[in-house]
Amino acid sequence: MAKDIFHDLVRSGLEAEGWTITNDPYRLKFARIRFEIDLAAEKIITATKGSKKIAVEIKSFLNPSTVTDFYAALGQFLSYRLVLEQEDSSRKLYLAVPLAIYNEDFFQSRFFALSVKEHNLSLIIYDSLNGGLVKWIN
Amino acid sequence: MAKDIFHDLVRSGLEAEGWTITNDPYRLKFARIRFEIDLAAEKIITATKGSKKIAVEIKSFLNPSTVTDFYAALGQFLSYRLVLEQEDSSRKLYLAVPLAIYNEDFFQSRFFALSVKEHNLSLIIYDSLNGGLVKWIN
Repeated sequence: MAKDIFHDLVRSGLEAEGWTITNDPYRLKFARIRFEIDLAAEKIITATKGSKKIAVEIKSFLNPSTVTDFYAALGQFLSYRLVLEQEDSSRKLYLAVPLAIYNEDFFQSRFFALSVKEHNLSLIIYDSLNGGLVKWIN
Repeated sequence: MAKDIFHDLVRSGLEAEGWTITNDPYRLKFARIRFEIDLAAEKIITATKGSKKIAVEIKSFLNPSTVTDFYAALGQFLSYRLVLEQEDSSRKLYLAVPLAIYNEDFFQSRFFALSVKEHNLSLIIYDSLNGGLVKWIN
């Protein structure tokens, strides 16, 4: 399904930029909660490049409502980051967003800019049509 | 549907404690985004009591996965709070959670305790079987 295609596009995009995929999916457990078990949520992958370690939450934004998808993505992102801070604190978490969605009003709004600042979000924008990573936003 | 019943239970619970409902639903617009338009998300209501002003995100947690529901609830809560800080900063936001869910492992875990601290969450625990508000957690 489309979600899996987007997942593979980001994975290939990372590899094309010299990253080695280390976990796909990344199985995260903390306080007896298995965070990755949830099939509805997006899978997280991890990668390394030299001494850099990242985790990427690949979001497809296929829901008709971008706002609803954003709520789920933000809640998942902040929850994973909180667990990473406890368990794997040298790994930086990114949220991967399709370029076509990123170019829409929601992501270009003042609200989204405020959210990025408030939550210190790091993004990877990927091209869900042609493949490849378009932009890293730290 | 059950979601609406839970909504009404929290509303009645607030009224029973002397709150006056001022908006149901609360229509929030910011940066041209109409946050309340999304039918999948939980409706927010507002209430006043003397000089106190609150907004309440009533969450039913009907999804088989509490983690998934928590992601959506957290993302919505933090997004609304961010907009309230800009537009209606004297209003305090609460997340209303059913007692039966609150008593489960997820909400009693060290992960949830960490989330409450990290995001400074305020909760109202309500009884979804017998009605009434059980506990306010600030």
